[in-house]
Order: sequence, then structure tokens, then C-alpha cells
Amino acid sequence: MRIAVVGSGAVGLYYGSRLQKAGEDIRYLLRSDYDAIQRNGIRIRARDSQFRLNDVKAYQNSEDIGKVDLVIVAVKAVSNRFLPELLRPIVAPETSILSLQNGLGNIEFLRKYFPGNLLFCGTCYICLNRVEPGFVENFLLGSIVLSQEGEASSSKLKTIGEMLNRARLNCRTSPNIDQMRWEKLLWNVPFNGLSIAAGKITTDLILADEGLNRLARGLMEELLGASSALGLSIDPKLIDKQFEITKSMGEYSPSSLLDFLAGRSVEVDAIWGEPLRQGLKAGQDMPKLETLYRLLRITCCDQ
Amino acid sequence: MRIAVVGSGAVGLYYGSRLQKAGEDIRYLLRSDYDAIQRNGIRIRARDSQFRLNDVKAYQNSEDIGKVDLVIVAVKAVSNRFLPELLRPIVAPETSILSLQNGLGNIEFLRKYFPGNLLFCGTCYICLNRVEPGFVENFLLGSIVLSQEGEASSSKLKTIGEMLNRARLNCRTSPNIDQMRWEKLLWNVPFNGLSIAAGKITTDLILADEGLNRLARGLMEELLGASSALGLSIDPKLIDKQFEITKSMGEYSPSSLLDFLAGRSVEVDAIWGEPLRQGLKAGQDMPKLETLYRLLRITCCDQ
Repeated sequence: MRIAVVGSGAVGLYYGSRLQKAGEDIRYLLRSDYDAIQRNGIRIRARDSQFRLNDVKAYQNSEDIGKVDLVIVAVKAVSNRFLPELLRPIVAPETSILSLQNGLGNIEFLRKYFPGNLLFCGTCYICLNRVEPGFVENFLLGSIVLSQEGEASSSKLKTIGEMLNRARLNCRTSPNIDQMRWEKLLWNVPFNGLSIAAGKITTDLILADEGLNRLARGLMEELLGASSALGLSIDPKLIDKQFEITKSMGEYSPSSLLDFLAGRSVEVDAIWGEPLRQGLKAGQDMPKLETLYRLLRITCCDQ
Repeated sequence: MRIAVVGSGAVGLYYGSRLQKAGEDIRYLLRSDYDAIQRNGIRIRARDSQFRLNDVKAYQNSEDIGKVDLVIVAVKAVSNRFLPELLRPIVAPETSILSLQNGLGNIEFLRKYFPGNLLFCGTCYICLNRVEPGFVENFLLGSIVLSQEGEASSSKLKTIGEMLNRARLNCRTSPNIDQMRWEKLLWNVPFNGLSIAAGKITTDLILADEGLNRLARGLMEELLGASSALGLSIDPKLIDKQFEITKSMGEYSPSSLLDFLAGRSVEVDAIWGEPLRQGLKAGQDMPKLETLYRLLRITCCDQ
């Protein structure tokens, strides 16, 4: 499949290069990593394999990429406003768009600008770290849940899922894009949020503090309540599972913490603001999320 | 009256020196400010008067002070554990103790160690800043509310109140010590707390952000609910009044923020922990306070 990867952070480089290694035709739209990748290729140090791709189709302008079958969107949600211009030259009527972004609102944003295209969303359960330009580390093997916008389920969903699995990316599909995204929020909201708000700490320190532990659980319970008010049915057992997974991650810095520490924008609205708005709209009070959101909004914007 | 001031921060030096200037016999137990005060006396720059006291009775050990009629306790609540030892040499059976400390739990702590003495609590509504050792600035004239433990009202309460008013410290008495302290929490909980948790900001920036404004109000509403569950009857209009007062304070750094920035301990349990515990015990859910408390506890202890 001819695929453009837009956004060359850890997620874009990792999924792009795994797919390329599995035989797909990947074209990377690069900005900060362009020079390093031209020089050294893309280097991946994953749990199951280490490799370097020297033959990288790297572009600085999407006009040069040409139309593709699939666009993988891996920019931060805070950069969504640049997507219409970046994507227009590579999106044909039959092009599908797959967002691998965190939080809510990304697919909805893309839909406004690409009303006729198939849109997919993938939630990535994986620990990635872009150690330096063009070099991504993956600790803990991950998985990806794939869903199609509007609870539809085209043959393209199956095709993309199979392709991801050929690249051993451990993909399963979900019939409900909202449920899939709220399930991911169950992790992102507490752990990304508290890692910043509790004084820039890794997830093991959140788990080690009884008060933060309870607060993380309280935030998850609020999300569960809101998702239920929105008609979703997330298994409450997922809360305990999130804690187990996080325990296995050790001294982990969530992506939002890395963004914050590097002075980059944090996806405050996509991860905390939009779930709060949707929950409140559905009549669900979310006072802990509200507190966390308001603190993050000012902390992360004041940098 | 022979008075010992224990705790030579902004509050202790300000109230002590105003009382001394009004003719009281004040004995200061000093630690970090001892040398500076021996050299330069105590300097006060207040809104209504500027003065320097050269004749200061400064002590480094409470044993040297002797028994007094009144002990003014102005240490941070985090130093309460040192009080029994510090106070024992100066407290006679007829000595009264007046705590000018923030938050809840201070009087209760003193009661355990001084079961036979009259205990008073004063909540100070005042902007003070210890600019350097022995030098305190007071901007915005303040007031003090005075109450006696156990909702009692002895002649000593009246005597202390009159003495404070002779020193033009604008004192009124309250028949209910709990109500008086919860009313003060209505300011301390949101403004001291958010000034730290929202990224080390002054109160004008809290007021300038709509989200933090709402959060401050939400915290006050939770406190109002808890105080009501505890049988107190705080006027809900006090919420708007707190915002008005804060507006008049301009670019103000609450004392907890100054403590935090200076690397000193913050009174997390007295200001946020104890009200939360009392509210929960009275059956009142306080999710915003809980979130703020848990974040502050780890932020302020991790310094």
C-alpha cells in the first residue's frame, strides 16, 4: 500500500518504519528529523527487533509525495490546524486517513475538511520514546486498536488491520470508535495528567503514592461514568487492568510529560478538555477531571 | 501584658511589634532573624505607619523568657511538633495561648499538651511579607478575628481583643472558633492552593483565568457544603466577597506560594488535608479539594 506518514515523532516513525519493513511503500513527511534521517536513516530499537532503514522516502513538502492510498496522521492534536493544508496534496477521493492521535476531537476535525474520505482511528497501547532525531526506542511490546469513524466497518478496515498485523503490530479492530477512544482515555487522563500536575513525575511515582493512586482511580471512575452517560459500555475491570499495565511499565514518562519537559505544546484539550465537555454535556459531573484540566490548561499554556 | 511571640515570620514579627509599640511587654523567641534583629531591630513598613523598634527583647531559648501571660504562636503548622518543648518553659497554669496559624488542627494539637490553659485562635486577614530578616511589609490594612476554643467566651477573650484594638489591629471576636476558621479557609484553600498547583502564580493571574476562577469558586462551594454538614452556617455571600477582596490585593503571592518558592515546608495538612478529612467524615464529598490536596501533597513534599 502507498502510505504517507504525517508527523515524524515517535509514533509516526515507529509505525511507518515497521510497515515499511513489512513491505509497504512509506513516504514520510518530515520536518525536524529530515536532515538526520537523510544522513542516518531511521533507527528503531524495539523489544522484538532492532533495525535501521537506510532507504527512506523522506519529504519536506507534501506536494512532492503525490496521492496515496492511506495517510497516517501522527502529529500532536495541538497541530491539527496545519493538517488541511498538509493533507490536501496527498489525499485523493479514495484515500483513507488513519489518525493515531491521542484524545478526542481529531477524527471530528478531519471530517470537516475531508467530507468524502474514509476515516479511521487507531489507539496505540505502546511505550515509545524518540531518543533523538530519527531514532525511536520501543520498550514493552504494544498493541493497536483500530476502528472506523461512524461505527462503520468497511473492507478497508480489515485491510488496514491485516497490514498492521503483517508488520507484527498486534492490531485488533473495534466496532465502536468512541468506546475505543474512551478506553484509551482511561489511561491517558490520569497518567499523562498526574505526571505533569503532581510535579513532573514518572508513572511509578504515581503508583507509589497512595493519594495519587486513589486520585487516578477516581479520575477513571469519572470517565467510566461519563462514558456510560454517553451510551458506551466500558468494562469496569479495565480500571484494575490499567494499574497492572502501568506497573509493568516501570519508570515511564508519559508522552505529555515529555512534551511538557521539552517545552512542546501538550494536548490539553484533546486529552482532558474534550472528555470533560462531552461528559458535562451528557449530564455527568466530573469534578476531579475538571480540577485537573483547569490546572493543566494554565500550567501547560504558561510555559 | 507580658507576651511571648513564638515564630518570627511575617505574622509573629508584625503582630508582636504592633503590640510592643502599643505598650505591651513583648518577648520574641527568634531563630533565623536573631542576629539581624539584634543588629537592626525590627522594621515594619505598614500602610498606616512605618517604624523601627530598636529595643527588642530577643531570645534564642524559651527557657530565658520566663513565664508569660500570653503566648502568641505564629509558627507554621508544619512545625507544631516543636511547640510542646518550646512552650513548656513559658507557659504557667494561668498563661493563655493564642494561635495565629492557618488551617485546622493547631488548637487541637496544643490542647493535647496544655490541657489546663485557655486557648484562643486568631485568623488574620492581612497581606504581610517578610522582606528580609527583621523587616516586614504590610500592604493592605488587615483585620483579625479572635475566638476562644470550645465556643467559650471568657473575660480573657475580651481583654486580648481590646489589646489588639489598642494596637489598631482591627480585631473582632467570634463566638464560634470553627466557623471563624472555615471562613478563613474559604480564601486559603483556593488561593494558596491554586497559586502553587497552577504553576506558581500570583492571585491576580488566578482571577484573570476564567477556568481557575470557576475552580476557585467550586472549591469554596465544596467548603461551604462541608461546613454546613458540620453544623456551621457560613453566609454564601462570603464567596463573592472573597473574590472582591482578592481583586483589591493585586499581584499577591499567598504565604504558601512564598513558602514553596523559598523551599520551605507548606502547611498542606492544616490547610487542605484536615478540612478534607473533616468534610468527608461529615459525609460531604469534596472531589475538587481532594484532587487539589493530593496534588499539593506530592508537589510540596517532593521539593
